[in-house]
Amino acid sequence: MSEQVGIQSILFDDPPYLISAASVVGTKEGEGPLGGTFDVEGDDDKFNSENWEAAESALQKKALEVVMGKAGVTELDIRYLFAGDLLGQSVATSFGLQSFGIPLIGLYGACSTSGLALSLAAMTVAAGYADLTAAVTSSHFASAEKQFRFPLEYANQRPRSTTWTVTGSGAFLLANRRKTGELEKTGPHKKICADDKNAPVNEGWANRRKVRITGITTGRIVDYGVRDSMNMGAAMAPAAMDVIETHLKDFGRKPEDYDRIITGDLGEVGQKILIQLLKEKGIDISCNHTDCGLEIFDNEKQGTGSGGSGCGCSAVVLAAHFLPMLISGELKRILFVPTGALLSKISFNEGQNVPGIAHAVVLESGDD
Amino acid sequence: MSEQVGIQSILFDDPPYLISAASVVGTKEGEGPLGGTFDVEGDDDKFNSENWEAAESALQKKALEVVMGKAGVTELDIRYLFAGDLLGQSVATSFGLQSFGIPLIGLYGACSTSGLALSLAAMTVAAGYADLTAAVTSSHFASAEKQFRFPLEYANQRPRSTTWTVTGSGAFLLANRRKTGELEKTGPHKKICADDKNAPVNEGWANRRKVRITGITTGRIVDYGVRDSMNMGAAMAPAAMDVIETHLKDFGRKPEDYDRIITGDLGEVGQKILIQLLKEKGIDISCNHTDCGLEIFDNEKQGTGSGGSGCGCSAVVLAAHFLPMLISGELKRILFVPTGALLSKISFNEGQNVPGIAHAVVLESGDD
Repeated sequence: MSEQVGIQSILFDDPPYLISAASVVGTKEGEGPLGGTFDVEGDDDKFNSENWEAAESALQKKALEVVMGKAGVTELDIRYLFAGDLLGQSVATSFGLQSFGIPLIGLYGACSTSGLALSLAAMTVAAGYADLTAAVTSSHFASAEKQFRFPLEYANQRPRSTTWTVTGSGAFLLANRRKTGELEKTGPHKKICADDKNAPVNEGWANRRKVRITGITTGRIVDYGVRDSMNMGAAMAPAAMDVIETHLKDFGRKPEDYDRIITGDLGEVGQKILIQLLKEKGIDISCNHTDCGLEIFDNEKQGTGSGGSGCGCSAVVLAAHFLPMLISGELKRILFVPTGALLSKISFNEGQNVPGIAHAVVLESGDD
Repeated sequence: MSEQVGIQSILFDDPPYLISAASVVGTKEGEGPLGGTFDVEGDDDKFNSENWEAAESALQKKALEVVMGKAGVTELDIRYLFAGDLLGQSVATSFGLQSFGIPLIGLYGACSTSGLALSLAAMTVAAGYADLTAAVTSSHFASAEKQFRFPLEYANQRPRSTTWTVTGSGAFLLANRRKTGELEKTGPHKKICADDKNAPVNEGWANRRKVRITGITTGRIVDYGVRDSMNMGAAMAPAAMDVIETHLKDFGRKPEDYDRIITGDLGEVGQKILIQLLKEKGIDISCNHTDCGLEIFDNEKQGTGSGGSGCGCSAVVLAAHFLPMLISGELKRILFVPTGALLSKISFNEGQNVPGIAHAVVLESGDD
């Protein structure tokens, strides 16, 4: 039986295996430091769609197709789908994933949604409610700018503190021990994406028992009074601080117990604030902290302000960059902490603060 | 250990107790057929707030306060909060529930969110991840009209097929056997809402072991090509049909095994379509079907079109109307099926269909 740990955490008794992952990104992401590691890098950011929202739906659809192809499973194998995006009423998810016909649990945690989706997908598998679940999240630069700030055609100026929403979608499959063993026997994985110029870089790993989600800490809303929608890093850093501090307390661990503590999209501005806030609590993560938003872009060369953001950002960087390091054993244990800023265009225009939320997921290399 | 049942369902081994519920509504709801049964009925629909979004946040805050007061628990007792609303980026939830500091799992399933929240809250308790969880959802007529159709000031005409979004929030507490027993020993429940003119009608039930969530069926997106945002009932009925049909198959039950099959907000138009669609499948629910949207308003007298809607509608009708009947034993077993229409103003204006989704929750009277 899994265990309630501390005030906000769960330690899984028989931790679910993260048996496969997929990443689909746009052009700017492909041109960045992680270019070449993603499964699919688009030729343009429209993905053969008529508008930006449909393009984001296409990202999610492709990510789920690719991850199923890698693992050699179909939609009939997946009992629950945990998914979300940044758009009002989560339309990227509704229109991107409806054709699969998988029971859908729609989530909203702003850019922290990838952490929420992985947490619930893991909880569901570990509880025996499903043998196999999927977690999918996305964001798109153009649909997010239109949704939260200004349409691109307006060509507004962007202060240096602004983050750049990642055009991308990440999909993950989580399975219990029995299903994982069964899938290992299905032989070589289907060749997928034959229609893509960019064939997947990683066609799946033969031994699927390489990475497990061993625990989670679910975050609460933290509001430090930030009101600047052009400075999301500052809005989210206090929530990241809160969930990391609680996580370490709940599990009785120190930052050094993790090879990396990886936030979602704090960027340069948010990273500084997070490290400082935790220092004031006597917790030093400066040696092993990184942020998905800092990994995906070269801010100087690419003009991406403070770094990447969006619930696609943390998902694709985990899938394409950190998971391979866990699979190879280069990383043994990481704390993955996607961060979200809770605002809408309406709440912002009505003068509300921008509170933050973050959810922590422990990923470990190896079968034990 | 709980059991996976059929293709989309879970049967809980030791079903969580629904130990308390609260309902907070606006004026029109208080004037309707269920007036007097809600815990709080507002004097106006603003709830001392500056705008409609803040009013909806106030509804959620009040609902959670009332349900905690009824049960004699504090926010420290509640390990996870499952919540959502209809607004873009779920701002009613973010701003309504942040002050409680409870780990938050944000959900989006349009008006089906109350079913999603109850399902996940029950799954979490039944798996041993929490002793006590809360599920909260809301909607508000004025914020929803602005969000999905037109601001009220525009005074657009409403065809008869339109549903009327309920101004209301429902909150539910779910607990495991141990916690339920512990709470029964805490004696009389705190007197609450002393500041409200409308004191709660039901101050809680002494024996909390009266209602349990014994199973769930999680729905998938169903798209029959409806494109009319003024006819949500038609958009959602196919999803309700799909989840009810699957539920009955998964559990090997017939409609007669339920005292009532209660959809969320199909209204008059959607009810007719649902009954017809199921008849074509050889399933007759005409004798025991009702819809929360039909219970809450008198459409003829109140001018509410096809009926009530919104993720507050099903929540407050369950809390104020059907739960008391389960507690008294008048109803033994019901199937609660909140229904959601998946659209945003943007997706609608871009010419997308309005697909539906629905989630089914089995509630049973008594301890066994």
